[in-house]
Amino acid sequence: MSISEIELFLREDIGDFDLFHELLPDDVAKANIVAKEDGIVAGLEEAIRILSHCGISATRRRDDGDTIAEGDVVLELGGSTRAILQSERVTLNFLGRMSGIATLTRRCVEIVAGTDVGIAGTRKTTPGFRRFEKKAVAIGGGDPHRFCLSDAVMIKDNHIKIYGMETAYGYARAAGFTKTVEVEVGNAEDAVRAAKLGADIIMFDNMDPRKITEAISALARQELCDHVMLEASGGITLDNLALYAETGVDVISIGALTHSASWLDFSLKVD
Amino acid sequence: MSISEIELFLREDIGDFDLFHELLPDDVAKANIVAKEDGIVAGLEEAIRILSHCGISATRRRDDGDTIAEGDVVLELGGSTRAILQSERVTLNFLGRMSGIATLTRRCVEIVAGTDVGIAGTRKTTPGFRRFEKKAVAIGGGDPHRFCLSDAVMIKDNHIKIYGMETAYGYARAAGFTKTVEVEVGNAEDAVRAAKLGADIIMFDNMDPRKITEAISALARQELCDHVMLEASGGITLDNLALYAETGVDVISIGALTHSASWLDFSLKVD
Amino acid sequence: MSISEIELFLREDIGDFDLFHELLPDDVAKANIVAKEDGIVAGLEEAIRILSHCGISATRRRDDGDTIAEGDVVLELGGSTRAILQSERVTLNFLGRMSGIATLTRRCVEIVAGTDVGIAGTRKTTPGFRRFEKKAVAIGGGDPHRFCLSDAVMIKDNHIKIYGMETAYGYARAAGFTKTVEVEVGNAEDAVRAAKLGADIIMFDNMDPRKITEAISALARQELCDHVMLEASGGITLDNLALYAETGVDVISIGALTHSASWLDFSLKVD
Amino acid sequence: MSISEIELFLREDIGDFDLFHELLPDDVAKANIVAKEDGIVAGLEEAIRILSHCGISATRRRDDGDTIAEGDVVLELGGSTRAILQSERVTLNFLGRMSGIATLTRRCVEIVAGTDVGIAGTRKTTPGFRRFEKKAVAIGGGDPHRFCLSDAVMIKDNHIKIYGMETAYGYARAAGFTKTVEVEVGNAEDAVRAAKLGADIIMFDNMDPRKITEAISALARQELCDHVMLEASGGITLDNLALYAETGVDVISIGALTHSASWLDFSLKVD
Amino acid sequence: MSISEIELFLREDIGDFDLFHELLPDDVAKANIVAKEDGIVAGLEEAIRILSHCGISATRRRDDGDTIAEGDVVLELGGSTRAILQSERVTLNFLGRMSGIATLTRRCVEIVAGTDVGIAGTRKTTPGFRRFEKKAVAIGGGDPHRFCLSDAVMIKDNHIKIYGMETAYGYARAAGFTKTVEVEVGNAEDAVRAAKLGADIIMFDNMDPRKITEAISALARQELCDHVMLEASGGITLDNLALYAETGVDVISIGALTHSASWLDFSLKVD
Amino acid sequence: MSISEIELFLREDIGDFDLFHELLPDDVAKANIVAKEDGIVAGLEEAIRILSHCGISATRRRDDGDTIAEGDVVLELGGSTRAILQSERVTLNFLGRMSGIATLTRRCVEIVAGTDVGIAGTRKTTPGFRRFEKKAVAIGGGDPHRFCLSDAVMIKDNHIKIYGMETAYGYARAAGFTKTVEVEVGNAEDAVRAAKLGADIIMFDNMDPRKITEAISALARQELCDHVMLEASGGITLDNLALYAETGVDVISIGALTHSASWLDFSLKVD
Repeated sequence: MSISEIELFLREDIGDFDLFHELLPDDVAKANIVAKEDGIVAGLEEAIRILSHCGISATRRRDDGDTIAEGDVVLELGGSTRAILQSERVTLNFLGRMSGIATLTRRCVEIVAGTDVGIAGTRKTTPGFRRFEKKAVAIGGGDPHRFCLSDAVMIKDNHIKIYGMETAYGYARAAGFTKTVEVEVGNAEDAVRAAKLGADIIMFDNMDPRKITEAISALARQELCDHVMLEASGGITLDNLALYAETGVDVISIGALTHSASWLDFSLKVD
Repeated sequence: MSISEIELFLREDIGDFDLFHELLPDDVAKANIVAKEDGIVAGLEEAIRILSHCGISATRRRDDGDTIAEGDVVLELGGSTRAILQSERVTLNFLGRMSGIATLTRRCVEIVAGTDVGIAGTRKTTPGFRRFEKKAVAIGGGDPHRFCLSDAVMIKDNHIKIYGMETAYGYARAAGFTKTVEVEVGNAEDAVRAAKLGADIIMFDNMDPRKITEAISALARQELCDHVMLEASGGITLDNLALYAETGVDVISIGALTHSASWLDFSLKVD
Repeated sequence: MSISEIELFLREDIGDFDLFHELLPDDVAKANIVAKEDGIVAGLEEAIRILSHCGISATRRRDDGDTIAEGDVVLELGGSTRAILQSERVTLNFLGRMSGIATLTRRCVEIVAGTDVGIAGTRKTTPGFRRFEKKAVAIGGGDPHRFCLSDAVMIKDNHIKIYGMETAYGYARAAGFTKTVEVEVGNAEDAVRAAKLGADIIMFDNMDPRKITEAISALARQELCDHVMLEASGGITLDNLALYAETGVDVISIGALTHSASWLDFSLKVD
Repeated sequence: MSISEIELFLREDIGDFDLFHELLPDDVAKANIVAKEDGIVAGLEEAIRILSHCGISATRRRDDGDTIAEGDVVLELGGSTRAILQSERVTLNFLGRMSGIATLTRRCVEIVAGTDVGIAGTRKTTPGFRRFEKKAVAIGGGDPHRFCLSDAVMIKDNHIKIYGMETAYGYARAAGFTKTVEVEVGNAEDAVRAAKLGADIIMFDNMDPRKITEAISALARQELCDHVMLEASGGITLDNLALYAETGVDVISIGALTHSASWLDFSLKVD
Repeated sequence: MSISEIELFLREDIGDFDLFHELLPDDVAKANIVAKEDGIVAGLEEAIRILSHCGISATRRRDDGDTIAEGDVVLELGGSTRAILQSERVTLNFLGRMSGIATLTRRCVEIVAGTDVGIAGTRKTTPGFRRFEKKAVAIGGGDPHRFCLSDAVMIKDNHIKIYGMETAYGYARAAGFTKTVEVEVGNAEDAVRAAKLGADIIMFDNMDPRKITEAISALARQELCDHVMLEASGGITLDNLALYAETGVDVISIGALTHSASWLDFSLKVD
Repeated sequence: MSISEIELFLREDIGDFDLFHELLPDDVAKANIVAKEDGIVAGLEEAIRILSHCGISATRRRDDGDTIAEGDVVLELGGSTRAILQSERVTLNFLGRMSGIATLTRRCVEIVAGTDVGIAGTRKTTPGFRRFEKKAVAIGGGDPHRFCLSDAVMIKDNHIKIYGMETAYGYARAAGFTKTVEVEVGNAEDAVRAAKLGADIIMFDNMDPRKITEAISALARQELCDHVMLEASGGITLDNLALYAETGVDVISIGALTHSASWLDFSLKVD
């Protein structure tokens, strides 16, 4: 997180002219940031950078990725009362949002524990905040998946509808030898086509577990599984996740990790 | 949403060098944005501005705040295939996040329908995205509450712990005659103190409905209710919201509107 | 003042490539910033932050808001000769402009001393520099008034002409329960209408003292004065200010505080 | 004025979330911007760009630099009522500040009319707003003088105190053959030294008219006046300006043009 | 290229206050941009966007990637004389730099024509200008290679020295299943280790053609070549490029494409 | 180099989410930056600021402008392994590009050594990177020439074609008395016209040495050389530079210094 970003985030919450806090006589105080729910903590690095930018010392009592319980102190703060009061909400919003995502990710990871299946995020993130949401997925034990259109190529249903899979694939490869090419498919037949083209990743989009299993069988019959990653995506919930994990895919990506995680509540308590 | 912001949001999702889409032969296409769930739509204005910035025409089939059903087309698009493919995800992320918040807000508003109680948001928002989250609350029928530390003064528990209510109140008033002053209290006694000081708004923080009712009775006995708004906040869920609405408060603020709303799913379908 | 802002202000004055100062052999020097006129000093906090960003130590000999006389040293500096020479003008421009505003504000405050009337600024400020001009008003003893369109609602003559007072007022209240609503009026009748609607502040715009007195009498006769702030604005000068202060208003806002204050001259003297 | 700057200026005045204006039902209106005082108008180009950015058409009735009288319409506007109400203050602030500077500059230019003496500004400007203040000086008929440390070299008293005139001059010339070198002097002797070094401009700093006349005589006696511009600066007011114009200098620079000009009042009247 | 970027590039060349061009009476003119050397043109899209931002119409006479000869008109312009004069240098600098890179890339591509070997760029680019330099490589027929540290993982000599190849490889894979992992090696033995780990790309760094041939033989003997891309890099010039192309590598990356290409000269001629 | 710029340069090379380096266990290391070619080093100040921003200590072993030989250590680094690995490429790109320019400039300076002729750069620079390229020219012993359109006025062929030399010259002088005015000419006759107008600098554009010599003779015959700088530009290479230096010009400006310098190679070696 750059200084420019920290300043933007602080300005959003403090506003242009917070005369109330400027008038308050400044003093030195200690404070704790305390978890109000059980979960996985994330965002501590960001919280510390924000606090430090405001001149507040912050001592970790937990690390990003740790399991925490209600009542746990995660950070001990010391510094100017004004600065603590002005930076409290931004700091807690980072912790709340990122820990919420890490906690939901960890639940998913635990559901597939014992298999080789990975849990991954998607690009269904809050505009402007993706980096922190992707990082929270990683802290929770998930794979961040591609960050943006530039870092790996995904040929999606709309690409195929417009250009056809083969043509789109040609352009995908032309985009650079360092890029992974992923193809989204909706049935076994297209999965086989994509594998034959040489796709690095095949994503089964909105297919139920049974159909995915059949598609993987089709690929296996033609010995097309060896150098391709298989990914399931679309309509996957905490309830049906275990079924998807049994289909033979390598990775399950879940939009809800970032778009629908409830946050984890923290509060800042001045001593 | 300024042009600078649109460009930042697009850059986050497109990245620095999306050669794949640059190589695709450009063409003209039509597409629809379709709801995949029932709810309240929000973010259409933002979606249209993003699409328009990318040279894509967008015709509204629904307005922000409308109730929509699965399968409803909300926007009809026309323009460059490359531009549609490159801007799809940012557009949908705005719609998904803002509509999710508007939908949850509307549910809360409907629960308290028939009372005079308002539903309000908080500052528990995603860093950098508050404006859109607050706007979604308003579209859903809620009150956005104060935006940042500069636009209204709230004297919270930590202020009171450090400076005492009376001292903090003095500085709050000194911050300007155009600012509303709100005081957070945890019991009836403090509510009376705050009202006597002249607070514009008293927020009952983390008090159960019964305690709030008692506090309001205490205020009423001393004829302190007439020129003060009463707000309940903390620990309010869809399940207990109706109970809070019966306490006599004017407004109920709910952090979950912005920090824990699931998003509403939309997809973009090229014809 | 954020680091990004300091860098923008410095770049404006230093330019893209100040080879002359880069070539000068660097050394260590001491210097004083000295007042060349009597007045109220403001901008010291900003001056110190700019100097500190450039690696120059600055020791306060006066505080923001202090009365100073010609010849007074306000800051003692120590550091790189190059840095002092490069940052001199920006530093002095902050002090000159902010102190000029604080000095004029203080004069107005002193004219109304002995009454309960406050002196307030307006939004008639230099584009991009409002925060510092509003702060200088506060340092001079004035009220900054609302900062921007988002922090309090003012229904002005043009709103009333387009929408009518009642309609505009309805939207103003819908903008949020934490916002103060102010209505601008030009006569006693409109003042009574605004008060009956429930306006928090009534601003008598470009009315002479006699008319304001009459309008306040009309409000008083209908017992409408108790929970409303009364503000005079428009055409108020140092010469007639005392007359306005006797009308019974609570606040007098004066655009000249920010738009027409002469600055207070300072110079930087290297030892 | 770039789009990024327009957006920054608008955001300062509109704030992050101006729900009141967003709620107002939008309509189309006509309006006029009218002068409330006599003077020289400046800032029309900026006003038009801001209005145009907001989708408002603006037709010039006067041009930058024109003499205007109270009651003159300078711009006729047409467009969205919301947009007009939201952009009014920023637009008027540009016109008021820039026209105030142009008006004061023109007064000075008229005082020296009939001589060959030019009137110039200084770098004593409002931080972040220099470009518009310098432009207003030019519109008023003045010379903007150097913009920043990078575009011409000025050897000031502090440079001379630290490095000596000769050494500083050497570095000034080393800064590039396309740069003008100006030397600030306080007496005839230093003026002669500077001229002998080859200075392009000699600035008589805080010298009274008699001393300047003597210094110019000293230069003339040594035939040093031919290829050097002579500038007076410091302590020059409307009252003594004519005396300075008789000294034989080529240019008189006046900080007050930008730092202490009262603004010229305009108002926006919706039809 | 975003509007914010265009404005930054224009501001760099125009500066803060270009009064000369503002004073020139504006008129309408036609002009041509003409090649002064033979080569491959690139940067036309950027040139057109810059010109268009300045209100100048630009008609393509050539397309990015075309072979052009001295004297060829590449763009025909029409518009304001001031705008053409102010934007000329930025426009030509884009064309000159990008065409220079495309021209050198094309020469390299032609040297390896008839083989299956690709030519690729590196991250040895001008800070802040990489996107345009990478794009010019692509226009010249080269592969842009990875853009930044985030889009593909490269394990370089310093990583291996600090962490060891195996450990570094583990973290590389943990960075995400959508990322390609490349390992830099200096000898056959390390190439075999990297291939056995499962590297997607092996880069032979600063190895002469003979050593690369031997390393590829070693890989082939162990049947490790099938799913790995082989890249040569370091010390490759126009003179020895053909030798590297015969080694059996798939790609040759050449820093000089971006860091040492001479530009291609263009001039703008007003009719 | 401002903090905002450092952060932009680092973000370009690191990208939005460099999970690989974030996962690597951090440690402390020492490293050297070593020259791989002989030349003139430049960019050390920039390198140190970037490294320091990343928390890495950097000790100079050479200074900007020093002659260095292959194998020379220019900087010794100490700090976090992650930070060193993440900032390596940006740091080396600054050194490589700036040293390449300084090295070529020094070669030109040495060719004209023994004459009074200066070597100067042009505005033919990489968009966004001009400041560093101009600075490298200065470090190499050259004159940076004007930075942008705002700091000195150059009347070029296109200005003359549109407005005529005399008219353009009038506007150039009106742009401010602190600005140098340069006129570009293509023959002796125009040189005389420009000198008679009073140009500060006359630039002989694309004239061969013989024609320049003749033009200077023409100027001398009319005694027009005394207060004008004479500059040669266009078509000047290492091969013909000595001939131009004998023509009698004061300065020779060479676009290739910035647009076609090969960079100087450096590498970073972790101990």
